Amino acid sequence: MKRIMLIVSYNGANYCGWQKQNNAISIEEVINTKLKELLKEDICVIGASRTDAGVHAKGNVAVFDTETTIPPEKIAYALNARLPQDIRIQESREVRADFHPRYDKNNKKYSYRILNTKINVPIYNEYTMHASNYLDIELMKNAAQYIVGEHDFKSFCAANTGVKTTVREVYSLEITKNNNDIITIEITGNGFLYNMVRIIVGTLIQVGTGKIKPEYVAEIIAAKDRSKAGPTAKAKGLTLEEIYY
Amino acid sequence: MKRIMLIVSYNGANYCGWQKQNNAISIEEVINTKLKELLKEDICVIGASRTDAGVHAKGNVAVFDTETTIPPEKIAYALNARLPQDIRIQESREVRADFHPRYDKNNKKYSYRILNTKINVPIYNEYTMHASNYLDIELMKNAAQYIVGEHDFKSFCAANTGVKTTVREVYSLEITKNNNDIITIEITGNGFLYNMVRIIVGTLIQVGTGKIKPEYVAEIIAAKDRSKAGPTAKAKGLTLEEIYY
Repeated sequence: MKRIMLIVSYNGANYCGWQKQNNAISIEEVINTKLKELLKEDICVIGASRTDAGVHAKGNVAVFDTETTIPPEKIAYALNARLPQDIRIQESREVRADFHPRYDKNNKKYSYRILNTKINVPIYNEYTMHASNYLDIELMKNAAQYIVGEHDFKSFCAANTGVKTTVREVYSLEITKNNNDIITIEITGNGFLYNMVRIIVGTLIQVGTGKIKPEYVAEIIAAKDRSKAGPTAKAKGLTLEEIYY
Repeated sequence: MKRIMLIVSYNGANYCGWQKQNNAISIEEVINTKLKELLKEDICVIGASRTDAGVHAKGNVAVFDTETTIPPEKIAYALNARLPQDIRIQESREVRADFHPRYDKNNKKYSYRILNTKINVPIYNEYTMHASNYLDIELMKNAAQYIVGEHDFKSFCAANTGVKTTVREVYSLEITKNNNDIITIEITGNGFLYNMVRIIVGTLIQVGTGKIKPEYVAEIIAAKDRSKAGPTAKAKGLTLEEIYY
């Protein structure tokens, strides 16, 4: 018996998210089905991040146990031959038998992409959120410094998720804009609460439009009250970039 | 009667191209239908570039004549409210009555995007071509200098298009790579033959992989023979960026 780790990338547009739900196709389910076909074993992958409907990934992580004699590194190629084009395995390799993608200590990097043009540009539609009001990224960078560090992020957590603690550490939050008017927000931390990245982005957008001042983000954090922060930004702008163990 | 110019952007993935064809939906047709609904007149737009199936645009140009009293600049907004999300009008304005988007002198800028990673990354799938072999962009830049300038581009033209002359001038050809491993080839010129950009890209890819030497591009041009150049690169990597009048 071997435990195999997969690095999984996908376009979340056509899925109900990572995890199986009634009446909709999940990424997990598609991978299980194709692994079963390939390996002739019943497979249930364990995912590192149960991304929501519409959220994308470059490097989500999943593991499963198998008796297969296929060399671990070859599984990625064999599986890609069966998977739809919107799910691609970047890598497959053997890990220790007790490696767990959620319980093993890890850091995550997310990116959020905002197309900031008066009118939407359809080629970027699948992986950017469109914001038609001009966003001042200098104001947003200024606000970002209040978010970096160890804080109680209760204000940036969707209500009633039942986690033990809402304290998390954000290591970095970088904001850049390219010459196609796409603003990329890259955020790295030791753990993220449910919808935390999307609520941070929704708040930074309010800063960028001038609706709230950068300094007010410190007050939002101190309030530990979800209603003080901005709205949850759309799923399709979010990409889980990488998980570091 | 007024002549209105539209700047049209679209994701070409779900269309048979700009121009109407049997048994498939064209971009032109969707715009005509929605203009007819909006203006209560029979409208037939004239497009600047009849992009192929799967090719995208940020700034294609179309004109039509109308008796409407809607202010020209407002037509873009009213039309966007009716169009599908994968077609967006960036701008509408009145132009002189004899302005013709194809016959008026113009320069065009195209971009071609190649995702150069071992395994495809699905979020970029709709507007990049995936190349799994490493492409050396220094070699490609070296080859590009033979393409810039006025040349007979017969070798880079799909056969039998019946044009009067295959001489065109390429003003610039820039190649850059971003930190997501997307190579962007930007090419500007006074006119492009059928499939010319895609054949240039197919040839530059052969240079980038080392299959042909950069200097050989000069021989391909001199040969005036389509069979000497590389294959036609996939439609989905190509975007018509802008038309300058």
